[in-house]
Amino acid sequence: MQIRDATAADWPGIWAVMEPIIRAGDSYTLDPASSEDQLRAHWLHKNDDGGTGPRASRTFVVTEETGGTSAPMVVATAELHPNYGGGGSHVANAGFMVHPNHFGKGYARALAYHVLDAARAAGYTGMVFNAVVETNAAAIGLWEALGFEILATIPEAFQHPRDGLVGLHVMYKSLLDSP
Amino acid sequence: MQIRDATAADWPGIWAVMEPIIRAGDSYTLDPASSEDQLRAHWLHKNDDGGTGPRASRTFVVTEETGGTSAPMVVATAELHPNYGGGGSHVANAGFMVHPNHFGKGYARALAYHVLDAARAAGYTGMVFNAVVETNAAAIGLWEALGFEILATIPEAFQHPRDGLVGLHVMYKSLLDSP
Repeated sequence: MQIRDATAADWPGIWAVMEPIIRAGDSYTLDPASSEDQLRAHWLHKNDDGGTGPRASRTFVVTEETGGTSAPMVVATAELHPNYGGGGSHVANAGFMVHPNHFGKGYARALAYHVLDAARAAGYTGMVFNAVVETNAAAIGLWEALGFEILATIPEAFQHPRDGLVGLHVMYKSLLDSP
Repeated sequence: MQIRDATAADWPGIWAVMEPIIRAGDSYTLDPASSEDQLRAHWLHKNDDGGTGPRASRTFVVTEETGGTSAPMVVATAELHPNYGGGGSHVANAGFMVHPNHFGKGYARALAYHVLDAARAAGYTGMVFNAVVETNAAAIGLWEALGFEILATIPEAFQHPRDGLVGLHVMYKSLLDSP
């Protein structure tokens, strides 16, 4: 397993991870019918004004050796960006996706540590998740294990395809504490 | 006083309201150095994928007669859009700005009622403010009077130019209750 910054050449691999997750519509507040172009712009921060400072948006991939002569395969991805502009630009937001075929291998946790370290190195003092689907127990369990707290739940804010109307958690972790 | 949907021709008037507020950098999590073009795109939703459905993003203005032969002047503005995509698109977010010369005339409250009505008419079931600066007492007082609750405060998330590091409130109001 390798974790590194994504390059433009990684997009097909990233898309293979993202597409089933977005199309399922059960974990991200993104339109499941979004086009590949829209999601590429979103995940690779094509429309960000952020520029090139220490808190410029970043995208990461986890790759796995496939054996033989094939290139390593993207099995998970994350992105990191300021959650707010202006006076709030020292608080980060991040998104994480692991391909369903590669759940349970520890990739989400390893990637989360990597992104939290990158956020601290960029000078962010905290990280917020704005909309964690309340029934996404695997994600919430991981975030809580990493020190995130549920600060609030926006009631009935998410129409889950199987669970019906559920809340969206706002989760927060200070990056000034111990990792 | 008139409250109506904004047109492209309103932009100079809207900008006259927005510019001092954004440049002050004490109430919005937008870069105070943003260009007029960036803020126009933001406030008029130029980059939204939302399209033309009932929950398409909208921008409003409050105008005041100036007397004489001049056109009515924009004194306040608001915008309304889905706070989330996908399964969360039934929850609204909105932004409000009143020109500092026109505080205390009840424009913010009248505009807020108008936007809440528009949100209900569009089928939104709730409205979230993601980042209300904790020391913005006038705004918080109005939102609480209108039935918004502080669900959480992201600690030290906003570098206020005078108050230092302050929290950002997440505020919420159900639109299914009485107005």
